[in-house]
Amino acid sequence: MKFGYTKLQQDGAARRGKITTAHGEIDTPAFMPVGTAATVKGMLPEQVAETGAQILLGNTYHLMLRPTAERVAELGGLHTFMNWDKPILTDSGGYQVMSLSKLRKMTEEGVTFQSHVDGSQHALTPERSIEIQHLLDADITMSFDECTPFPATEEVAAESMRLSMRWAKRSREAFVERDGYGIFGIVQGSVYPKLREESAEALKEIGFDGYAIGGLAVGEGQELMFQTLETTIPHLPEDAPRYLMGVGKPPDLVGAVQRGVDMFDCVLPTRSGRTAQAFTRRGTINLMNARHAADPRPIDPDCSCYVCKNYSRAYINHLLKCQEMLGPMLITRHNLHYYQELMAGLRGAIEEGRLSEFAQKFETQYESGDIEEIKK
Amino acid sequence: MKFGYTKLQQDGAARRGKITTAHGEIDTPAFMPVGTAATVKGMLPEQVAETGAQILLGNTYHLMLRPTAERVAELGGLHTFMNWDKPILTDSGGYQVMSLSKLRKMTEEGVTFQSHVDGSQHALTPERSIEIQHLLDADITMSFDECTPFPATEEVAAESMRLSMRWAKRSREAFVERDGYGIFGIVQGSVYPKLREESAEALKEIGFDGYAIGGLAVGEGQELMFQTLETTIPHLPEDAPRYLMGVGKPPDLVGAVQRGVDMFDCVLPTRSGRTAQAFTRRGTINLMNARHAADPRPIDPDCSCYVCKNYSRAYINHLLKCQEMLGPMLITRHNLHYYQELMAGLRGAIEEGRLSEFAQKFETQYESGDIEEIKK
Repeated sequence: MKFGYTKLQQDGAARRGKITTAHGEIDTPAFMPVGTAATVKGMLPEQVAETGAQILLGNTYHLMLRPTAERVAELGGLHTFMNWDKPILTDSGGYQVMSLSKLRKMTEEGVTFQSHVDGSQHALTPERSIEIQHLLDADITMSFDECTPFPATEEVAAESMRLSMRWAKRSREAFVERDGYGIFGIVQGSVYPKLREESAEALKEIGFDGYAIGGLAVGEGQELMFQTLETTIPHLPEDAPRYLMGVGKPPDLVGAVQRGVDMFDCVLPTRSGRTAQAFTRRGTINLMNARHAADPRPIDPDCSCYVCKNYSRAYINHLLKCQEMLGPMLITRHNLHYYQELMAGLRGAIEEGRLSEFAQKFETQYESGDIEEIKK
Repeated sequence: MKFGYTKLQQDGAARRGKITTAHGEIDTPAFMPVGTAATVKGMLPEQVAETGAQILLGNTYHLMLRPTAERVAELGGLHTFMNWDKPILTDSGGYQVMSLSKLRKMTEEGVTFQSHVDGSQHALTPERSIEIQHLLDADITMSFDECTPFPATEEVAAESMRLSMRWAKRSREAFVERDGYGIFGIVQGSVYPKLREESAEALKEIGFDGYAIGGLAVGEGQELMFQTLETTIPHLPEDAPRYLMGVGKPPDLVGAVQRGVDMFDCVLPTRSGRTAQAFTRRGTINLMNARHAADPRPIDPDCSCYVCKNYSRAYINHLLKCQEMLGPMLITRHNLHYYQELMAGLRGAIEEGRLSEFAQKFETQYESGDIEEIKK
């Protein structure tokens, strides 16, 4: 079976599609929960699947350090290792090297760095990153790139983007073609439309199975992010998936889908789950807050997830106060369900040609705030 | 429906029975996982049930401090609060006051103490302990007692036991009879047969729905514990369940069942799960140990639990090294399954009159040690 993208419907710039991979299909627009170290923190894989997730993201940087890509390969690949038989996308490691490791040195060849875990020396090049992702058995491999810091002058952004384009070419060449497996290129160029266009054209010239938009959600704000999507996406092919990396908050997802994005990943639902923040149709609430201590209502009275069907805010507040693992476990599960349900809502709205109505309704409700009074 | 115990079979001193409660039946001999703060740490209630557990233990001391018994009652009782609809036994708080709280003062009336959480002042008397357990909606209420420290001279043990017997009478009187709910007395008397006999007779005189053996597993060792069971149990009624509190390791459970114990609780399977220790048919293993890092085998190749069906030692070792929550979650789940399967094995052996054969086989295998070589 060939790796591929099929566009099923369109509503404005938004697309309803399907990605075919070696480990199954992905309905787009799709949100990918982050499983950094071969686990979505606090979740069993079947619970992740139950929220509606059809693909996970794994982190090359973390997995190359622990337990190493070779170890994962010996143990049957990442799917077997972590008991997740659906598709997996791995990032290239470039972003984490910059954000987590110490004593980095970058050259045309690649980057050398010290592990944040034990200080050991490592190197990543486009060729090694692709090899690691192959060893991990990722359905979708990401090109190795440099995530341009923000803010950056146009000159710095141009140099960084052009290095990433040379690395993208080397990544593409290092990628071993296999049925059902694909490789994505990553558009860089900071917030400069000309650079984004140049980057998109360079990637199309190389030819990829999908196109990611990198270097956003790094502090530029939603308006500049949406503008950049609007100037970048028209330069991407119609017949390949578009993936906005590391995004984002629920309103970011809605706005990006409206602008033609097909895939997202973000730690927000899982990380928030470990810091007491829950997503509801009326915005976020902090379950550590004393006002929830006697509240018999679920996190979100309009939610049908396992957590909202079985547990009260009062109980979750109690678990958090007692530092019980089950607190983060339950909020994470609810949050992931919330994100997947939002994506399902977006997909349904595109299918029925009512996306702008959906987005309008979503925004009004999301900004209306939590219902304060307790109905017993 | 009346709270009650039915003896179904007997094999030597061991009994196969059934306890009927307001929230369902319990097959005995039974092991009760500990759900201290209204959660079995790292487990969802339905996962606990899936291991075979039919009853949980909740802690009066922890719950009276957080979220308070009144709050739990307002929210529908402990079953609803924590989403566990099967039977619950609560301890009386006496043991935790002694082991966890600060600045205790004990009188004939009861005990005053400072919370280990925030230093606030609290009091527990037999009457208040029973009231709290009523508010929590425990199917089985435990009498308020003093857990005699070990070692204790016969004089100290006698005084302490006699105080507990006066408290047992007050507990029994404070207990509100309800269909399907029961109250247990607790035999004390340290390791002195005469005192144990006196205590058992005093409790029988008061009359309880079940009889616990307290003050053991406090450092006296297995031999002295078994001796104490042998001198205590003949003084307990045949038609009521016997509960050995806070016990224990798998060989302790087997030996105690052979001596006529029907119920157990212990933090060992859950606490071990959070410190990398897993129970196997061949003894315990520490999954943090480097020898497991490349081992594709499950925790216990002879185990049929969810964890052993889906995850390798190598994966769990990786999770532990990365301090991922999923590590303790998986080991806890396996350990609880191991304990419940052991209890099911004991019940089956009693039913078929082959308990001593079962115990012999168990011991030989448990002490044989982990299989070292990796079969790929």
